[in-house]
Amino acid sequence: MKPINIGLIGWGTVGSGVVKILLEDQALIQKKLERRLILKRIADLDLESPRPIQVDSSILTTNAEDIIKDPEIEIIIELMGGLEPARTFILKAIAAGKHVVTANKALLATHGQEIFKAAKEQGVEILFEASVGGCIPVIRTLKEDLPANHINHFFGILNGTANFILTKMSAEGVDFDQALAEAQAKGFAEADPTFDVDGIDTAHKLAILVSLAYGHELELDKIYVEGISQLALLDIQFAAEFGYVVKLLAISSSNESQIEARVHPALLPRDHVLAGVNGSFNAIFFNGHNVGDILLYGQGSGMMPTASAVASDIIDLARSISKGALRRVPSLAWREIGQDGMELKPMEETITTYYFRFSVLDRPSVLSKISGILGEHKISISAVIQKGREVKGAVPIVMMTHEAKEANVQKALSEINQLDMVRDKTVLIRVEDRF
Amino acid sequence: MKPINIGLIGWGTVGSGVVKILLEDQALIQKKLERRLILKRIADLDLESPRPIQVDSSILTTNAEDIIKDPEIEIIIELMGGLEPARTFILKAIAAGKHVVTANKALLATHGQEIFKAAKEQGVEILFEASVGGCIPVIRTLKEDLPANHINHFFGILNGTANFILTKMSAEGVDFDQALAEAQAKGFAEADPTFDVDGIDTAHKLAILVSLAYGHELELDKIYVEGISQLALLDIQFAAEFGYVVKLLAISSSNESQIEARVHPALLPRDHVLAGVNGSFNAIFFNGHNVGDILLYGQGSGMMPTASAVASDIIDLARSISKGALRRVPSLAWREIGQDGMELKPMEETITTYYFRFSVLDRPSVLSKISGILGEHKISISAVIQKGREVKGAVPIVMMTHEAKEANVQKALSEINQLDMVRDKTVLIRVEDRF
Repeated sequence: MKPINIGLIGWGTVGSGVVKILLEDQALIQKKLERRLILKRIADLDLESPRPIQVDSSILTTNAEDIIKDPEIEIIIELMGGLEPARTFILKAIAAGKHVVTANKALLATHGQEIFKAAKEQGVEILFEASVGGCIPVIRTLKEDLPANHINHFFGILNGTANFILTKMSAEGVDFDQALAEAQAKGFAEADPTFDVDGIDTAHKLAILVSLAYGHELELDKIYVEGISQLALLDIQFAAEFGYVVKLLAISSSNESQIEARVHPALLPRDHVLAGVNGSFNAIFFNGHNVGDILLYGQGSGMMPTASAVASDIIDLARSISKGALRRVPSLAWREIGQDGMELKPMEETITTYYFRFSVLDRPSVLSKISGILGEHKISISAVIQKGREVKGAVPIVMMTHEAKEANVQKALSEINQLDMVRDKTVLIRVEDRF
Repeated sequence: MKPINIGLIGWGTVGSGVVKILLEDQALIQKKLERRLILKRIADLDLESPRPIQVDSSILTTNAEDIIKDPEIEIIIELMGGLEPARTFILKAIAAGKHVVTANKALLATHGQEIFKAAKEQGVEILFEASVGGCIPVIRTLKEDLPANHINHFFGILNGTANFILTKMSAEGVDFDQALAEAQAKGFAEADPTFDVDGIDTAHKLAILVSLAYGHELELDKIYVEGISQLALLDIQFAAEFGYVVKLLAISSSNESQIEARVHPALLPRDHVLAGVNGSFNAIFFNGHNVGDILLYGQGSGMMPTASAVASDIIDLARSISKGALRRVPSLAWREIGQDGMELKPMEETITTYYFRFSVLDRPSVLSKISGILGEHKISISAVIQKGREVKGAVPIVMMTHEAKEANVQKALSEINQLDMVRDKTVLIRVEDRF
């Protein structure tokens, strides 16, 4: 059978990994695939920077249109990232009847609806295994392994940079700024780490997972997102005293009418399977009504792990092209998206348990005053640590609560923060203790 | 489109779970699938025992041939287990042009070659996601997520009964017999637990994984298999003192010419991701040359988790049937099996680290004598515990070694066991410390 021609748009780190696999692992791939894969063209604005793998310069171009318009190219790999011009290139590629493989979570979370609709109308495939969890087979698991499950809830550590920083803070007792600086020095964090540490990247991935798990498209700006840049080392240390670790989590659950979707730092019990996911590793934990609990764990980023996931999509496509079996599985696994009748649960209605740290003047009445206000808002306390450590002239009181409603918690903390004896804004970290 | 008719052979625990999904989760499945699934016939010799889900008695038969010969049935699910008549039924089903879904690891490990060859010749599919790791998507991960990876090594906890017993021994300090009795009382172990505790079930699963990972078919009786029934509580406790837990592992690795494949109890470092896999959970850890480390974790057995994996195969098949895309992926992912030129590495050539427990008379010369013999066989010691606890008149000396060769270890222990001062046969447990 004749080979399948591939064009790559975006020759960065992951792109270089894909080139490496297509050139160096061809013999292995040929043992699994009837048709040969040929990397016919690479487009990138920067063709001068050194790359880890050399390619014949005749296949290089600075013009992505050279790939999109090439009638011999059947699969286009988009690895440039960002919204534009990636969106335009992908839509043009689809219009030209090409299949698309992408790792672009920002784009899919923002313009997924438009792109998936275009692909359906053109009868082409769009695969995106590398967009969430790097090499971890999370997309294919949702599409093909759990189709007969209602996903009760799932939560995951989906950003390697944030997890590297939290692991470092926890293991070495350094504060956020120092951990970030080390992550940057080691190449685990970008010069501008906003997307990673502010939870935006995690929210993109959560939006994609929600669409796969529930057939529901979230408006990205309605997801509650809180990052880790405000997280104090002190709270990581107090959490440890209560037997918890702090992780940046994407959390979702659903019942028949509502979907919960939020991104924030959370306390996880130390013996939870996700608590041991350290450094730049990612992991995701699903609870399905038939399977019960499933955990998937691996490298969420990095050149070769991410390229491996892109390669799995290329091989998946090549198998489908060879059998004339396109769109065997819908892009998001569901025949119709957005027909679920479900809505996003407002953050104020979230019910969970909480960790609070109050900064108070060391007066006899303070504990009864605070617990009184909490009680008025139906928040009951499950554990308290009050220790003499002074921080900026105040002492910390740390509490864990039983389940409470977010709206009540916000009201109570707002009242407490206005007390004279309270010196700093109260720290709130939500707890995730579903195993 | 017209519905797809399904026949089920074997109406036991997992079969009942599949019936439950096909009847109760039909609406969910229809949101993902263009064609309706109809459970047209169920065959079982025992139609009288109570089942958790009622079905119309008109679909029941005691004769599997009623299903195999039904021209309207396209998919046959074999869940009777065992070698015969399961093998004959599956071969007849394939000959009749039916697609087959099975969870029968013993059959695939023993007669896989014959069955996969027949399916290839007939152009039908045989899917078996539930045969290894219950609901954990291990088969599909190897076939579809890691095709561009050479699997350097993998190891897994693949038997829930054995893991339940080991977890109980470790957590509660009970011996094997007591833990087994409790596992049986709770339904986690069969009345005859031989397959599970002697490692045979794990070896079946290992053989299937080796064929998927390396395209190599192992002769089952050449796999080194050691179970847990001889495991003493004392060794679990000593292992804990060194920072290890004991798990029954399936272990495999390969280079270009040899495949290692063995099943035995092994010491895992306490902070290893697999060390926290407790109770009846299973997990498998892969290291691929591009992905690095991946861990998959979930329920390895049980009615609904296993049925969920069977259902994922049914839906996979229904999607392929609907698109006329049969055999899009070869049964074992490789175009040709057994063309790899690799051979099974003899157990004697295994190189790993070891835990030894010597039972010796408490004499001054004993440690130097034993370490002398070990040294003569190029086995060097990394840690020793010698404590005064008397066991049957002897004291235990426990050692951890650096890497050594199995043949040398066996020779050294054979010499040591003949010493007058050695009272009982030396205990040997291999260590798995690749993360």
